[in-house]
Amino acid sequence: MRDVNTDNITDVFMGYFGKDTNPRLREIMLSLATHLHAFAKETNLTHDEWRRGIEFMEWAGRITDEERHEFVLLSDVLGLSALVDMIHSVPGGTSSSVLGPFHITGAPPLAFGADMKRHYEGPVLLARGTVKNMKGEPIEGAELDIWQTAPNGMYSSQDPDQDTYSFHGIQTTGPDGRYGFTTVKPVSYTVPTDGPVGDILNATGRHPWRPSHLHYIIKAEGYRTLVTEIFPDDDPYLDEDTVFGVRDDLVMKYVEQPAQTFPDGFELSGKVNEPYLLADFDLILTPAAEA
Amino acid sequence: MRDVNTDNITDVFMGYFGKDTNPRLREIMLSLATHLHAFAKETNLTHDEWRRGIEFMEWAGRITDEERHEFVLLSDVLGLSALVDMIHSVPGGTSSSVLGPFHITGAPPLAFGADMKRHYEGPVLLARGTVKNMKGEPIEGAELDIWQTAPNGMYSSQDPDQDTYSFHGIQTTGPDGRYGFTTVKPVSYTVPTDGPVGDILNATGRHPWRPSHLHYIIKAEGYRTLVTEIFPDDDPYLDEDTVFGVRDDLVMKYVEQPAQTFPDGFELSGKVNEPYLLADFDLILTPAAEA
Repeated sequence: MRDVNTDNITDVFMGYFGKDTNPRLREIMLSLATHLHAFAKETNLTHDEWRRGIEFMEWAGRITDEERHEFVLLSDVLGLSALVDMIHSVPGGTSSSVLGPFHITGAPPLAFGADMKRHYEGPVLLARGTVKNMKGEPIEGAELDIWQTAPNGMYSSQDPDQDTYSFHGIQTTGPDGRYGFTTVKPVSYTVPTDGPVGDILNATGRHPWRPSHLHYIIKAEGYRTLVTEIFPDDDPYLDEDTVFGVRDDLVMKYVEQPAQTFPDGFELSGKVNEPYLLADFDLILTPAAEA
Repeated sequence: MRDVNTDNITDVFMGYFGKDTNPRLREIMLSLATHLHAFAKETNLTHDEWRRGIEFMEWAGRITDEERHEFVLLSDVLGLSALVDMIHSVPGGTSSSVLGPFHITGAPPLAFGADMKRHYEGPVLLARGTVKNMKGEPIEGAELDIWQTAPNGMYSSQDPDQDTYSFHGIQTTGPDGRYGFTTVKPVSYTVPTDGPVGDILNATGRHPWRPSHLHYIIKAEGYRTLVTEIFPDDDPYLDEDTVFGVRDDLVMKYVEQPAQTFPDGFELSGKVNEPYLLADFDLILTPAAEA
């Protein structure tokens, strides 16, 4: 079209598509172009603003590497990642929540009751629960991929002082569906602010904090894989998670337990006679989608 | 908010903003988030599709460097660049069109009538016209930044066989507002297809061609700077420019002139007795916005 204008641009764009274009791709591109064009028209976007947008994307590209994923962070702080989770959550199951950029594959096995805390300082946390289906029946052979921050607020991939798999482990449930391990209480932390996403947070008067949480990915045959996080109910950032990850059903209480009650079957190096925190949280999986 | 959901996510997002946020930034971010969230909900965007989107952006970041601007190209093929131009075009002036990624600063002066063609093969083109205001009065001291492809379809920045400023020049108008130079007929060419944007074009059955054109940036004191392109009316890609740059008023005729009529005052190395093409095109500037 040589007479493209602000009214017909989206139609002209779609008119370029080949007739064999995958229907799902066509649907996504139509929605994308419709909203992109409406955004530019609604805001009367100027050339200077467009140029700043391009510079933003190029900066995000430059700062991205194997361990830093600025476009994921951008999606997170814009609420897109959380929205994709919520769109696909299934009623009756535990809510999913953002994966975040710190999951690493290949974590070592973590036996039931094993100690992820080891020599790290901080409040002892005993996390346990049952992986169940929607009827409340325990799921045997569910694989939990578990990770969290060290007491300094850093994941192992961010912290040269931690081993590669520090505070990472994979636990598989037995016939009773139970999981459980000893760890240290996770802490609130900030998302990285030294890149373009940090600039957005700063310019819009937003803080970069996330409430503390334990991360889980739970896989079991016949069930939808669940990517989630659980949050203690006393975290000061619970109502303003900068990546919108908190869901009502993922908030729980860490219950303080008296000294000398640490249960058998759970490892703990030192401090066995002191009070500790108990996080008892069941994880409910939903059936896998039909093939 | 701990009870964020698919209905309130945009409100929760805006609720995080500081009260001192720049009002224009707030307006842009509200529109951006509203459309981004609507896009995800309308398409029921899956985690896999989200992940492919992130991989796309990371690939665009990796391929970008000083001379390759994949996010600009993405904006171009999605029609966003053209839309920003059209939103800000002023009725009565020559239409603006996409800058494209091949403009370079610091081009040498090009005297009136000078020869940009030099030793390059291809049809001789004499381009000329008047820079005018909306009353039709000539504008003295207008600076035209001119650039185009060589006959091989490449801009100098893409082509190691060309000098840095091959087919680039800056001409300043005299009291009569006239500009004019000798060159070679520009050719149709393809945008780069070896990156993620090429993948989109391929997946949607789109070709990567742009119709041939001459690029101009025209600056004059008291007038809006005009970034534009002019297109010959016989180009096969005129109705399907892959970056949506064609406007009705930018399409013109290259008129074939008989042999031995090449005008005085225009340089031409060789071929002076042969037929040549004449592109006569006036450029109309609009007043600068009030400060």
